[in-house]
Parts: sequence; structure tokens; C-alpha cells
Amino acid sequence: MPPVVDLSALNARLTDAAPRDILACAMATWPNCALSFSGAEDVFLLHLASRINPDIKIFTLDTGRLHPQTYQFIEQVRETYDVRIDMLCPDAERLQRLVSDKGLFSFYRDGHEECCGIRKVEPMRRHLAGFDAWITGLRRDQSPSRRELEIFEPDARFAGASGPLIKINPLANVTSRQLWEQIRMLEVPYNPLHDQGFASIGCEPCTRPTGPNQHEREGRWWWEEATLKECGLHKK
Amino acid sequence: MPPVVDLSALNARLTDAAPRDILACAMATWPNCALSFSGAEDVFLLHLASRINPDIKIFTLDTGRLHPQTYQFIEQVRETYDVRIDMLCPDAERLQRLVSDKGLFSFYRDGHEECCGIRKVEPMRRHLAGFDAWITGLRRDQSPSRRELEIFEPDARFAGASGPLIKINPLANVTSRQLWEQIRMLEVPYNPLHDQGFASIGCEPCTRPTGPNQHEREGRWWWEEATLKECGLHKK
Amino acid sequence: MPPVVDLSALNARLTDAAPRDILACAMATWPNCALSFSGAEDVFLLHLASRINPDIKIFTLDTGRLHPQTYQFIEQVRETYDVRIDMLCPDAERLQRLVSDKGLFSFYRDGHEECCGIRKVEPMRRHLAGFDAWITGLRRDQSPSRRELEIFEPDARFAGASGPLIKINPLANVTSRQLWEQIRMLEVPYNPLHDQGFASIGCEPCTRPTGPNQHEREGRWWWEEATLKECGLHKK
Amino acid sequence: MPPVVDLSALNARLTDAAPRDILACAMATWPNCALSFSGAEDVFLLHLASRINPDIKIFTLDTGRLHPQTYQFIEQVRETYDVRIDMLCPDAERLQRLVSDKGLFSFYRDGHEECCGIRKVEPMRRHLAGFDAWITGLRRDQSPSRRELEIFEPDARFAGASGPLIKINPLANVTSRQLWEQIRMLEVPYNPLHDQGFASIGCEPCTRPTGPNQHEREGRWWWEEATLKECGLHKK
Repeated sequence: MPPVVDLSALNARLTDAAPRDILACAMATWPNCALSFSGAEDVFLLHLASRINPDIKIFTLDTGRLHPQTYQFIEQVRETYDVRIDMLCPDAERLQRLVSDKGLFSFYRDGHEECCGIRKVEPMRRHLAGFDAWITGLRRDQSPSRRELEIFEPDARFAGASGPLIKINPLANVTSRQLWEQIRMLEVPYNPLHDQGFASIGCEPCTRPTGPNQHEREGRWWWEEATLKECGLHKK
Repeated sequence: MPPVVDLSALNARLTDAAPRDILACAMATWPNCALSFSGAEDVFLLHLASRINPDIKIFTLDTGRLHPQTYQFIEQVRETYDVRIDMLCPDAERLQRLVSDKGLFSFYRDGHEECCGIRKVEPMRRHLAGFDAWITGLRRDQSPSRRELEIFEPDARFAGASGPLIKINPLANVTSRQLWEQIRMLEVPYNPLHDQGFASIGCEPCTRPTGPNQHEREGRWWWEEATLKECGLHKK
Repeated sequence: MPPVVDLSALNARLTDAAPRDILACAMATWPNCALSFSGAEDVFLLHLASRINPDIKIFTLDTGRLHPQTYQFIEQVRETYDVRIDMLCPDAERLQRLVSDKGLFSFYRDGHEECCGIRKVEPMRRHLAGFDAWITGLRRDQSPSRRELEIFEPDARFAGASGPLIKINPLANVTSRQLWEQIRMLEVPYNPLHDQGFASIGCEPCTRPTGPNQHEREGRWWWEEATLKECGLHKK
Repeated sequence: MPPVVDLSALNARLTDAAPRDILACAMATWPNCALSFSGAEDVFLLHLASRINPDIKIFTLDTGRLHPQTYQFIEQVRETYDVRIDMLCPDAERLQRLVSDKGLFSFYRDGHEECCGIRKVEPMRRHLAGFDAWITGLRRDQSPSRRELEIFEPDARFAGASGPLIKINPLANVTSRQLWEQIRMLEVPYNPLHDQGFASIGCEPCTRPTGPNQHEREGRWWWEEATLKECGLHKK
């Protein structure tokens, strides 16, 4: 049975804590938790967590549309940290129907929700149903829709193994600048796309490099409204 | 019921026929046939076939590891010819097991058969089970293992809707040079990778550009023996 | 004869002025002035200046080692604004001697001064000798060595047509963020390399993309000390 | 004084000779000769010649518009073979006038002769005036205008140190296929652009990759007539 925890108290206590300490607390409190790895700068969490417990359950969404560089990077991480990474794949039948009926780029016309639903949300829902908590790399400074993010929060969108699922965001209060200082200082391997103008990295057709002084979120789903730029994994 | 046809007689009769005539004969003889499109220069067959019958059943294997340019090209073809293209996707569970257990590039170590089996052979087997015949872009000049190719042959590897499946290779006797002359003359759209050194195009990690005067097959599964360079779709 | 001007008074008066007003003042005060265009974001100055006076004398250093994209961008600017751009080229004999004796990448071993001296400083010295003042896109936020930059200053390095040369930096107090807001708002064409991770753009072998939250100057002469990262055009 | 040689007799005698033997004969007959290296597959000649005599005089035309990859490759060759390569650069004044008056891409409108004249022909004329003979990588199979090429011929276009200049083409009768077999077998380093679809390599704006089964000459000056595709170095 998952522990009953007062999340507000935990948030208050760890509001200024380092990501490593938040991770350690999370992994101790919810032993049955999963770490989400997107192939982007959240590699920093994987770096920290695998040092706390090399058997941490890590998963990645293999949407089938990632950049070749991202597939290579995920493999590099797997080998560097000597960890198992559970790759979650979309259901063949649902995916076939979508792309056969609407083509391979329907998200540009219809919005990204339908495609993300099949390639990301559904596989993750299936997977998270086996856990009590999951850990993400979300940060408040990533987008307008993430400004109110808490470190520990009930997941409004997914259910866990025994009912409610807890979502833990150890980087919630970390800025992009701080995160990258850490990545460079600790020589954490990172996706080479980050050095080709990509601040945020997701699926290839839904990601683009950003120019000087552009907010990283302008590199994602740029044909949609800023406030809608969540892929369904983190919707409230 | 599929027709009972003397393939040897057909081969003899059409040995010097133009691809268009072979296609017309094939589509008339086996109305329940499917055209395979790989996102490469076999677009020429799709061009011809869709003019003979715009409702021809076309399918593509979406392995989840194609080049971004290939996904864009498939969409361009779909729109240019206004055809439905059935996208065949790998089974989620089998795929997850492979890439979670062995990583995303196990084919470089273990050979490409296991990965092709899940991403190509199995989805195609499922699909072809609904047809009496299928049409491919195979040519004799593509590789040592294709030198004996016939235009019409029984498929030794897949079964059809009512038993044996017929495989039709309208380009069997066409050379690469002839094919490209046709593509350029008829202004058939083609994969932009062909202008970046790629002669043969398949999955991104298993395809590479070839240099001047290199045989196109050296751009595929280059870490394996030449005689084994079949993906399982066309094995005997 | 060039005017005798109290530069301190001018700096005091225009310290908060918009780039456009500084440019207008500079072009009126020193009619015999030249605008430097580097093929990077200083295109904003060219945009403003060519609207004040389409006959403004513009020059670019064609070092012979610019990115193909930069050559294309310079041409695009020439055509978009319908201006003449004087291209300054290095002396053949001096250049031949350098690259024949030391190879094409001696700067990585010996520092960039010798190469910049031949490809940039000498051609510019020759050119500026015909002017009373020149206008640059330097900004204080570009590098540690530019923090004390004034809008109007005597050029300590080059001589003008009739003795001292005045150097005018209309963007001295503008931040990168402000500059890019203007470029995007006014739809000024810009070098496509800026959207591929390049913040600062110079010669191809001496420029590299910067990663997230890296200072733009880390993309230039990265093998040398930060305080030495001036190409000789702007040394004191 | 250069030797007086019966070129027809030499051609007759060496018509079937290997490039290495032609080179040895040429270097012995005209000790004051220069080897031209273009940064493309003629690296094979440099490979052979530097083994016969490491002090062979090698030159390259640094037009100022080569691909970054070509500059890197020239440097790699310089270091691999430990040879001096004389880099020939265009006259600053003539070049400045051309590109300031007509822009950086006038060749697309006016033809490539004017630009090649300044960037290639004139620097080479200057250089060849110091030699009795020069060695090129020309082959008969490269273009329609090269079909009649002899191994030894008087140079109709340039003059040598003491009057007529001899031009030696040791690869005249070698096919592209044979040349590349040698390059690969001997592991001669080659320009990486050759593996990105570039068969023929020259200046960046005047070179493009060729597609499958396209003649290499279609990658050069493609906006001009096939029979005019000589850069002036090899015109009759």
C-alpha cells in the first residue's frame, strides 16, 4: 500500500531543497515510483536518481517520431549509466488508424492532442498504473502553463497502482540557467540537439530550434496557442 | 477465390513488358492485391498504379525509425496522388520488450533480423493475410540476393487471404538508371534523401549514404554480409 | 574637414536615445561615415540606416571563410534593401603566404590575431582611411571586453581620412533581448544560422553554436581566454 | 630550359600506363612541374606523386568560396602527407570590384566565367608562369567537353616559365569507377562531401549533390549548357 503523505507539508519543508534531496525523499517515501525521461535536459534527474538507486525504474516514451539524435542519446544514457530504460510504445491498431486515416501530420491541422493521446498519454497511462508515484523534469520557467507547479502534487490525470498517483517535480523551482550550469559542471551527457538551437525537445515534427532570446516554449507546437502547449501528460 | 494462374507462362509473356503493362495485368488478374510503398524510388510504381486504379490498396511500413524526410515524403505522396496509404505499425508489446531489454540499436550487435521481424515482417504478415497478391519495387540490380528475381512468383514467405500469396515485381528487369530516367522525365516526386547521397532508403539507423561508384546495397546493413542483406520481407 | 565634436557631451545627451536617433545624429554630424555590416544581427543597424539615407556607405569584410549561409544572407540584404555593400577582401599575397606556410587553421594553434589581421584588420584599415567615422553594431552585453563601451568614442586603432576616426556604437546600451524583439517585430531579415544555435556569427571555423543558457561569446574563439576575444577591429 | 619532348610519342607510349607510371615519367621529364589539387578525388594523384617525390610542388586554388568541409579536407591532406600546399588567392582589388558591383552570386545571372576568371584563372596564370609543366586530375569521363583529352598536351591557355606549358593528365583514361576503387583500396583520405551525394566538388555555390544515376557534371554550373561547363582552367 502506498503511504498516506501530507503533500502540503512536504512542499513547505522542501521548497528550497536541492533536486537531489527532493529525489532522495521522494524515492524513500514512495519506493514504488517511476522516473520519466524525455531524452532532453531532464537527463539531469536521471543522473541524480541513478546515483541514489541504480535500480530506479526509468521509462521513456518512444513515440515513433523522435529525432534520430534523440534515439541515439537515449541509448547513450542507457549505456553511460548502465540502467534499464523502459520504452513505452503506442498501440499499433490505434496508431495505424490515425495515420492511415489522417496522414502523418494531422496535428498541424487538428492540434496535437489526438496524436499525443495515442503516442504518449495512453502508453503512459498503461505504465503508470503500476506505480504509486512518478518523477518528472517539469520546471516553472518552462511555460506559462507551468507557473504554478508544485514539487509534490496529486496527479489529476493518471491513476496509480492503488488509486491516486503522486507526481513529483524535483526541478520545479530550478531555472533553465541553473539546470544547465549543473549539467555542464557535472559533465552530464546531453542531447546534441541542444547545441543546434533546440532548447526544448520532443517529437521531431513538433519541435523546432528557437532563435536568440526566444522562449524555449516557442520551439514546441508553435502553430497553437501558448496556453495550450501541454501534451496531455501534464494537463490539469 | 483468387485465380489459378500459370506464373511461368505469365513471366514468359511479359518478360520484356513495360512496368505499366505488368502492373495493369497484375491488377486485372488479382483484383484483391496490395501495393507496397517503401518511401524510396518505388514511388514510381505508385505513380503508375494510381493512374490505372486510384483505389489501389497501398501500404507502407511505419517502423517508427524512418528518417524525418521519409515521413514527410510519404505525406507528400499521399497528398500529391490523393490516395489512402495504409500505415502498418509494429505491435507495441513486442516492440517494447525488444527495445527495453536490448536497447534501441541491438541490430548493430545481433543483426537486423530480430528488429525487422517486429517492425516489418510481422505487421506485413498480418496485412498481407487479407490479399491474394502484392506488388513490390524489387529489382534484380539492387543486390546479389535479387539477381534471380522473377516478375511473377509465389511468395515463399507470406500467406494470402485464401492460401498462397503471389508476389509481383514489375521493376524486376528495370535498371536503376532506367528507373531514374523515368522518375525525372515524368517529374514523379521523390524522397529528398536521394539527392543527399542515399541510393537505397530504409530505416534511419540502418541506412547510410553511398559514395561515388559504390553499389547502393552498401548503404544498407553495412555491418553484415552482402548475401544476408534482406530484411525478411523478401527472403526465400 | 571632419567636424570637431565634443564626444562626451554627445554621449551624455544621447545615452538613453533610441538607436535610430543615434544613427540620425551620427549620419548628420559625420556625413562621410561608413556603416559596418557583419552578416549577423547588426543587420538591424543597416535596416535603420538605409531608411535614413539609402546611399549610406555600407561595407562587409569578406574574409573568404564565412559560412555559405552568411554569403547568402549578405546577398539577401543587398537585394532586400537595394543597397550597395562594399566587400573588403584580404590582400592575396599576404593571405597566400599565411595559409601556404601555416595551413588553413593556424589560428587554433597560434591564436586568431594573425589571421584576423590579414583577413579583417588590414582590409578595414585600408577602407576606413577614406572616412571620418564608422558605425558598428557593438553592444556592452556581448562580451566582458565590451562592458565599458561608449556610444561615441575616438577609434584608438584606426585612422580616418583626415586624422582621428570616430567610432559610433548605436546599440551600445541595447540588450540582445531588446535587439531581437525589434528584429522580429519589424520583420528584419536575419541570418538563418541564428535559428540553428548560433548567437554570434563570424568566420566559419571560428564560430560555433552555443547551447542553452550559454553566453554568446562562448561561440567565438572558444579555445582562447574570454578577455582576448576581440578580433582586432575593436581592440583598445 | 625545359626539355623539348615529342608529346605524341609520349602519349602513344603511355596510353595504357598506370597513373603512377605516367606521373613518374612526367616528374622525371619536367622536374620543374606543379601538381594541381582541387580538394576532390584528384587527391589520388597527390597520394601517388608525394610518394614519388615528397617535395613535389602542389598548389590549390583557394577561391574564398569553398565548402567548409573542403577547407578541412585540404588541411587533412596537408597533415596526412606532410606536404606543403601552395594556396593561390584571388587579387583583392579585382575581387572587391566584382562582388561589390554585382553581388556575391553574379555567376547565376552572368555565367561563371567572370567569377572563375578572378578566383581561379588569374591566380593560376600567375602561378603557372613559374613552371614548365603542370599535372591535373582531368578524366575523359568527367564531361562531354573532356572526351578528347590526351595524357600529355600543350596547354593552350597558360604559358610556362620559358614559353609553352605542358599539361599532364595522368587520369585521362581512368574511369570514375576505377579511380574510386583505388581510393578505397589504398585508403586514401577523401573529401567527406563525396559521401553526401557530391560527385564533383568545386566552389560551394557552384556545386550541388547529384541524385542516383545522374552524371557528375550535372552537379556543376547546372544553370548553364553542358558543353560550357569548364571553369576556364581547362578551356581550349
